Amino acid sequence: MIVTIKDVAKKANVAPSTVSRVIANSPRISEKTKKKVREVMEELGYHPNFQARSLAAKSTQAIGVIMPNSAYYAFQNPFFPEVLRGISTSAHDNKYGIYLSTGSTEDEIYNEVTSMVLGRRVDGVILLYSRINDKTMNFLQSSNFPFVVVGRPDEHDERISYVDNDNIFITKQVTNYLIDLGHQNIAFVGGSTDFVVTVDRLNGYKLALKDAGISFKKEYMVFEDFIKENGRKAIESLMNLNDPPTALVTQDDLIAYEMISHLEDMGIRVPQDISIVSFNNLMLSEHSKPPLTSIDICIYQLGFEATKCLLEKISIPDTLPKRITIPTKFIERKSCEQKK
Amino acid sequence: MIVTIKDVAKKANVAPSTVSRVIANSPRISEKTKKKVREVMEELGYHPNFQARSLAAKSTQAIGVIMPNSAYYAFQNPFFPEVLRGISTSAHDNKYGIYLSTGSTEDEIYNEVTSMVLGRRVDGVILLYSRINDKTMNFLQSSNFPFVVVGRPDEHDERISYVDNDNIFITKQVTNYLIDLGHQNIAFVGGSTDFVVTVDRLNGYKLALKDAGISFKKEYMVFEDFIKENGRKAIESLMNLNDPPTALVTQDDLIAYEMISHLEDMGIRVPQDISIVSFNNLMLSEHSKPPLTSIDICIYQLGFEATKCLLEKISIPDTLPKRITIPTKFIERKSCEQKK
Repeated sequence: MIVTIKDVAKKANVAPSTVSRVIANSPRISEKTKKKVREVMEELGYHPNFQARSLAAKSTQAIGVIMPNSAYYAFQNPFFPEVLRGISTSAHDNKYGIYLSTGSTEDEIYNEVTSMVLGRRVDGVILLYSRINDKTMNFLQSSNFPFVVVGRPDEHDERISYVDNDNIFITKQVTNYLIDLGHQNIAFVGGSTDFVVTVDRLNGYKLALKDAGISFKKEYMVFEDFIKENGRKAIESLMNLNDPPTALVTQDDLIAYEMISHLEDMGIRVPQDISIVSFNNLMLSEHSKPPLTSIDICIYQLGFEATKCLLEKISIPDTLPKRITIPTKFIERKSCEQKK
Repeated sequence: MIVTIKDVAKKANVAPSTVSRVIANSPRISEKTKKKVREVMEELGYHPNFQARSLAAKSTQAIGVIMPNSAYYAFQNPFFPEVLRGISTSAHDNKYGIYLSTGSTEDEIYNEVTSMVLGRRVDGVILLYSRINDKTMNFLQSSNFPFVVVGRPDEHDERISYVDNDNIFITKQVTNYLIDLGHQNIAFVGGSTDFVVTVDRLNGYKLALKDAGISFKKEYMVFEDFIKENGRKAIESLMNLNDPPTALVTQDDLIAYEMISHLEDMGIRVPQDISIVSFNNLMLSEHSKPPLTSIDICIYQLGFEATKCLLEKISIPDTLPKRITIPTKFIERKSCEQKK
């Protein structure tokens, strides 16, 4: 059964026009009434069709950009300014402004996105992450509000448009590269398993090991936040194993720098004693000691294409959902060596 | 004579309520009427008092953040993500979102800001730059819309709130540091003289030279955009002088890195042949070769304090304007040496 505005109005004991105004977040409706109507909307499972609304309403000429955590942490990682550079360039080409989230927890982010959508602050949203079972993504999807994800959505839902790298494939490739150099003890030092990107890369790593007949060791997985502050803990636990790794697949250049620095403190040399490959190919990677072998995931392009895709969805609401895979580049430098 | 809504209405041949709706950018008014009324507003010099309006109107819970040029260029410079980190943290603490400009020219930025203000998209604006005779700043000032500048405004106007470093003082200090190391031929490699920060630093540099009895040489000034692509041109023109400099004061670590790299190509060693001091103390500066002596201008703090100041202005409109000076730190590393 499709729930309509009339059903909500009847149950909430208000006029249908009041429900419409609550959806539009009109200042003419009291907060008390808004609360009541929204509760009924939730209870009945009513979701306004924002895409249809957006056609009728005046465009806001703005898109929302949602980061996985607060800017305090996010902007310590050069990924976010770089993806924002791609987003802003495409937004600007189309005379769109950018509304940036500042939430620091999942709940805060959810509240910000619902308020962007219900308050008609933006015409569409870009999620800069894909989390397992993310309620913000679920809200956007069930509201039929235009959005695009940077990253592969957790659940296989063909209606969701996203832009991503082929993380399984490339992680399999870099793991193979280390195996070809003679390494068998290869550790996986990743981000949080809340994020699909970590899960995908872990699967690529496991596939490479399996194909090479190397058994997968649980103790070779170290999950830490992307933030480099946690690097020391990660590397110490690994190097203190009875059978320590001779190669690392790290998920982020920032973590890699930190590890190289801690390894140096421990008297372990990169690449002579341990090889490291990483992801993101940050500007620093060329200048670090040793220069870092890294996967360039084309961050700017991820942001640019996600925005292009979103703006297409906004202007032509019946555009089919798209999955865009951005190719990566393997940048071989000096952080890996043949196993002795 | 104070121009009122009634004057505008009479001249435009519409009702005063129509003028109010145009100011609020109501969708109920046709674009044609809006255009006509806005032309009359401009002609008569009418500026709605947005500060008073904001008290009456519902808060947007958003602030506008305006960059000096497109994100395409701005986000190549770590200054912007870092200042945005400070802004977002303070905005988030106060449950505010951020509306980011994407304009790439002065005119585009002006249009974005007027549309943010007239369209009531934001409660206040942070300008991330201070340009000489900037029409965007003039618009904000004459509209009496809450705004704060990161950087010292060009004209001495006590009503403008801003957050800045004491650029004259610190540049005098670093120039003195080079003079104390025995350098007399000191070049100034700065950003665009469109920006007040460049002018202030140039003045600090000149003051130090004057106090030391060193005559100022025009050919020792190289003005280039902050973007590092222009570094080669800057350094070549300097080093080809008959009396080339033995020390450089550069305005930005990114320019400094680039120069060090070009100097290396030219067979000139830092610090043995030429000393370099710079500004911003980017994360890379510790790890560059040689580690860079740089002024930490506390970018995060500049953004954080500007936002705090703006939110105070928004919530208490009759707050007195403030000038906040953020202290800097001189980080001495290995890019300067005693002149031989």
